[in-house]
Amino acid sequence: MKVFIVYAHPESLSLNGALKDVAVSHLTALGHAVQVSDLYAMQWKASADAADFITRRDPQRLNYPSESKSAYKGDTQTENIKREQEKLLWADAVIFQFPMWWFSMPAILKGWIDRVYACGFAYGVGRHEGEHWGRRYGEGTLEGRRAMLSITIGGRAPQYSERGVNGELHDLLFPIHHGILFYPGMRVLSPHIIYEAGRMPLAEFDRVATGYKSRLDQLFTDDPIPYRMQNHGHYDSQQVLKPGLGHGQHGTRIHLLQPGDPPQAA
Amino acid sequence: MKVFIVYAHPESLSLNGALKDVAVSHLTALGHAVQVSDLYAMQWKASADAADFITRRDPQRLNYPSESKSAYKGDTQTENIKREQEKLLWADAVIFQFPMWWFSMPAILKGWIDRVYACGFAYGVGRHEGEHWGRRYGEGTLEGRRAMLSITIGGRAPQYSERGVNGELHDLLFPIHHGILFYPGMRVLSPHIIYEAGRMPLAEFDRVATGYKSRLDQLFTDDPIPYRMQNHGHYDSQQVLKPGLGHGQHGTRIHLLQPGDPPQAA
Repeated sequence: MKVFIVYAHPESLSLNGALKDVAVSHLTALGHAVQVSDLYAMQWKASADAADFITRRDPQRLNYPSESKSAYKGDTQTENIKREQEKLLWADAVIFQFPMWWFSMPAILKGWIDRVYACGFAYGVGRHEGEHWGRRYGEGTLEGRRAMLSITIGGRAPQYSERGVNGELHDLLFPIHHGILFYPGMRVLSPHIIYEAGRMPLAEFDRVATGYKSRLDQLFTDDPIPYRMQNHGHYDSQQVLKPGLGHGQHGTRIHLLQPGDPPQAA
Repeated sequence: MKVFIVYAHPESLSLNGALKDVAVSHLTALGHAVQVSDLYAMQWKASADAADFITRRDPQRLNYPSESKSAYKGDTQTENIKREQEKLLWADAVIFQFPMWWFSMPAILKGWIDRVYACGFAYGVGRHEGEHWGRRYGEGTLEGRRAMLSITIGGRAPQYSERGVNGELHDLLFPIHHGILFYPGMRVLSPHIIYEAGRMPLAEFDRVATGYKSRLDQLFTDDPIPYRMQNHGHYDSQQVLKPGLGHGQHGTRIHLLQPGDPPQAA
């Protein structure tokens, strides 16, 4: 299979760098083809701006989504954006390797999303009509691919538990898991998390590497997080969850399929 | 009073640019002093990297938090980072004006957080001991300041409602509200949101501007979101919410004070 690793850390000698290297060598040993985008090494431009467009529909006033749509459709995107889209299309699975900074991804990776996720590619796909609101949330250009976050976190696990002060991990990651990965159609695996990353003694690394390798062994077999697909009858024409679904659940969890729910296509 | 607006949009002729201008003129007319950081105009460097440090504790291997701590303490931070910290310290209220991109802030603004929120300034403040885990979540360097997000959103309001497909707005914003604004001590106001921003006819702008001005009139009187302070007895020594608190609530809402809870200092 084909695995694309998007890696965002400014120091190659970091734990993140080491985990990226473990993934490359282990996945290769398993017979997979691997490509890496090392965003810092590539000096990836983080800020979405007018320089992203070679020609402009409206040279006077930048409407980013509108120029993005036009550039994607007319094949006038910049080469660096096109190359990253091609890697996403090539991949069967995408791994995002990064340190959690301020309960989200580093800016350089957010800027990769902001720019590579073009209009017509990652959003603005499909028709809007009644209960069918575009091809998104389980459908779309990246359908059929798996995605997994591999994150290092400075804090301690209890602080990310269901009642931890930072907020529960899956709630914090919902905007990324659901809003960035599931949105254009990818199936999202549970994240691979290393807590207390800043305090890890070097002697621990073998254990951590072994744990990550076992996780990678299951990259194509682990069950994804069972987010509800948008266009399979669970949301109404306002894209609001229909009455009777999500019963007994609250917050972001209402968007998870539950036993007894009407089935959705895989 | 003193208001600091952090503004992130690549087009000055945008709705975001217009809302920033409305805020500057209206707050000034109300007698407040206003400073603006226009991140795109400043060509703010979004990516946190080695260039953020003039001198290095360890020139061989970049540990960003450790270098950040050392630079903050030793007053060797870069001028651009220092200037933004000074604006935060100057302010009585901070407004963040930006378009929601992929259920979060644009990369350029995330990179402002990643870099300006230095170790010793926004995190790594105060002692860790028992139930007291640093000065954070309601306490810290930015204590006494108010913060408000002013966001434009392309999507429709129902999709961000309690059962909307995108996730409930306050759940999506929790990593920012709680993890970025409340963390270093600011009091967080409910966000000011303009939905369907991309489809807004120009004729609507007067109404939108009037609504925003009314909101700004209450910048110093609106009640903040009642997040629980960390160090006032509600979290245990693992920083986990104590039994009996958050009863009947779930997800991110357990971190909101509820009627009948033991009081916390304001």
